[in-house]
Amino acid sequence: MSPSKRPPSGSASPVLPVDDALYQEIQHFYGRQMRFLDQGMMEEWAATFTEDGVFTANAHPEPSVGRAAIAGGARKAAAQLAEQGLQRRHWLGMLEADKQADGTIHARTYALILSTPRDGQASVHLSTTCDDVLVREEGRLRVRRREVRRDDLR
Amino acid sequence: MSPSKRPPSGSASPVLPVDDALYQEIQHFYGRQMRFLDQGMMEEWAATFTEDGVFTANAHPEPSVGRAAIAGGARKAAAQLAEQGLQRRHWLGMLEADKQADGTIHARTYALILSTPRDGQASVHLSTTCDDVLVREEGRLRVRRREVRRDDLR
Amino acid sequence: MSPSKRPPSGSASPVLPVDDALYQEIQHFYGRQMRFLDQGMMEEWAATFTEDGVFTANAHPEPSVGRAAIAGGARKAAAQLAEQGLQRRHWLGMLEADKQADGTIHARTYALILSTPRDGQASVHLSTTCDDVLVREEGRLRVRRREVRRDDLR
Repeated sequence: MSPSKRPPSGSASPVLPVDDALYQEIQHFYGRQMRFLDQGMMEEWAATFTEDGVFTANAHPEPSVGRAAIAGGARKAAAQLAEQGLQRRHWLGMLEADKQADGTIHARTYALILSTPRDGQASVHLSTTCDDVLVREEGRLRVRRREVRRDDLR
Repeated sequence: MSPSKRPPSGSASPVLPVDDALYQEIQHFYGRQMRFLDQGMMEEWAATFTEDGVFTANAHPEPSVGRAAIAGGARKAAAQLAEQGLQRRHWLGMLEADKQADGTIHARTYALILSTPRDGQASVHLSTTCDDVLVREEGRLRVRRREVRRDDLR
Repeated sequence: MSPSKRPPSGSASPVLPVDDALYQEIQHFYGRQMRFLDQGMMEEWAATFTEDGVFTANAHPEPSVGRAAIAGGARKAAAQLAEQGLQRRHWLGMLEADKQADGTIHARTYALILSTPRDGQASVHLSTTCDDVLVREEGRLRVRRREVRRDDLR
């Protein structure tokens, strides 16, 4: 395997390139998923994870495991934002994706989180990386495992 | 229709998914369109709207209706930026798109506007959403209706 | 050639549209390339340029010519960032691409560079444009010529 095909984060499993239809589908999936989060549609947000989905972050002491925990964490965060009058926007970009030998998809993105106070100045809230294991269930993509790493916490 | 296919902003009309070729074409269209705006090519910018195109924004008291009004508004804004020595960059991302039953395309994006003073520090100017109704005319995409909502104005 | 197909930066050569597979391939290429840069994988970064690749920037007095010079410049910049405890993230977006008559691809993007200090606040570092001439070598895309123009330096 040539250097430019090697996944940046070390994985020993053989990988296959994704085709252009799948690459686009992942982009589209992320557009929908982040809109659910930013619009406070937390059941829809949680449904973009598998039933046993895992959300792990270097800012969280423990991973959230399962849709109920993922929805609960998001609802709590949304309540705080509402109280503070903040509108967040989650951008995922610079997508790099491979199919793993086990049929899952490894999708790596950069995340940019913008924050805008009511009547205030929009600004960068966080820069992170986002590493997803995606699977297809009932014809659609879902996140089985997400690992978010904030760039400030190293 | 399943939750994750439902458009976030309520629309009762049945929708069809866009295919990967159209998703890419919309991304490409936005790349061209925003470059026209940021480079001050206002006739070309206006030509990316239909002749009767409507540009509405929660920051504007009235919508701009028709290419002449859209070009005029953009020229006025560009003149102010030139006087202030500011280079703006409009990023559209997190695209979500559906074909409507009437053949139009509903394309929703997040917009990030960056601003850089001459010899100064680049910064986030605004975070907005952008909801477009796109149509195909003479083989190419055009905006029939755009609704921009600034995140600070709620 | 119609206005909306004309490349913004003046080029007299006839151009052909890229298809959706190539558009996606360029996006994917940039995802990989920028991850190499931001993760300090400088040999892999340099290998995304042709052997005789040219990197030119309005912030640099001289272009970097050839992979060794491109890798050397990147290693020097990375050492400074490491000393300062900064994590940079390079986003390329708003892609517009055409095939030139000579078989090369002209790819224009906006670049947003984010910077995050260890335990500090992420922020916008720079807004630039990035104009690439891409070629295919051994089946993969490589940059033959890159021109980066910072928006603050005009």
